[in-house]
Amino acid sequence: MPDEASRDGPGLDAHLREYPLGGETLLSGGFLEVHRDTVRLPDGSTAMREYIRHPGAVAVIPLLGEGPDPDVVLVRQHRYPIDRVLLEWPAGKREADEPTRACAERELLEETGYTATEWAWGGWIHNAAAYSSEGIALWFARGLQPGPARPDAGEFVETVTMPLLALSALDDRGELTDVKTLIGLHWLKAALTGNRPWVWTRADRAPDVA
Amino acid sequence: MPDEASRDGPGLDAHLREYPLGGETLLSGGFLEVHRDTVRLPDGSTAMREYIRHPGAVAVIPLLGEGPDPDVVLVRQHRYPIDRVLLEWPAGKREADEPTRACAERELLEETGYTATEWAWGGWIHNAAAYSSEGIALWFARGLQPGPARPDAGEFVETVTMPLLALSALDDRGELTDVKTLIGLHWLKAALTGNRPWVWTRADRAPDVA
Repeated sequence: MPDEASRDGPGLDAHLREYPLGGETLLSGGFLEVHRDTVRLPDGSTAMREYIRHPGAVAVIPLLGEGPDPDVVLVRQHRYPIDRVLLEWPAGKREADEPTRACAERELLEETGYTATEWAWGGWIHNAAAYSSEGIALWFARGLQPGPARPDAGEFVETVTMPLLALSALDDRGELTDVKTLIGLHWLKAALTGNRPWVWTRADRAPDVA
Repeated sequence: MPDEASRDGPGLDAHLREYPLGGETLLSGGFLEVHRDTVRLPDGSTAMREYIRHPGAVAVIPLLGEGPDPDVVLVRQHRYPIDRVLLEWPAGKREADEPTRACAERELLEETGYTATEWAWGGWIHNAAAYSSEGIALWFARGLQPGPARPDAGEFVETVTMPLLALSALDDRGELTDVKTLIGLHWLKAALTGNRPWVWTRADRAPDVA
């Protein structure tokens, strides 16, 4: 998993690193799992760290078409904690130990009905590293075959298709605020102009990354 | 505040919106404040939503110099929940009701020792809208005057200065994973090429946004 492979080895950054001394579970059983650990700081003193243990998530950047301005598929979804409807890439939380591409295939199908014939790895992002272990794996998808969406119970999402440059114009006007969507947009533009590697694999072959 | 001004009005997106019916505090008093609310879904059924109430945060994109490839100032910091050292813009959590530019000035000084003579608004981003009310306000800073850093007790950060294009190369190689840092990098490149509005205000004048 790229997230693991790129991690610093032990002993590096000893002047910055915090080491666990022990911990407890503050909240568990519902949606959020909250832990409080005692850590040893670089100067030898101790401190408390509260954080969410999160299984990770995926976001899918689905391309409909070729060329410099392909249509892309997004979803609109109400996000209760901020009471706003956000425009986002199809995305969702990983099941325990679920490979990220399998999760990407599942979330794309559930939220939009699309099945992709080719996938390209995007990268990991850390969205709340101060208080959550969440990493989000970004995948690009193309060769989309339409079908019926299969939303989870209690999930209400609306599919939106628009040209990439129209999405980019929303960003330029400050109207996109979701972090995975902004980063996926920028990485897509970089890939389309040859400024970022883009390796496509057929959906029936095993991905190079988890 | 832009975050408020751009919010959809009541009644819009009724087919997506979730309404609070009541709630309780699950965890409070330490670092994280966790709530569980009962919500009414668009189809009239009910569901539970667990989320963190967060005061919001700021990140500062500090420029040292002019031209298409200015030096920028970042910090390296160990993030305990993911056990990794991340390269990030100077950033921090807002005090209750603290204006975002005041918070930006405070965090820039505490973490790097710099004071800026001019500020430009970047935008709001939502980094964990599924389970946190956090918004991060991005500010650009220039005209930097050096001084001693004043880290909080228990905070260990290392200041790093590098050319913008070197930071961008880290992104192209997949070595930047912090969301506010990736988005600030892309917005800075867009602003420098005239593709994103950039309005600078002297530090001794009131900002146009909170």
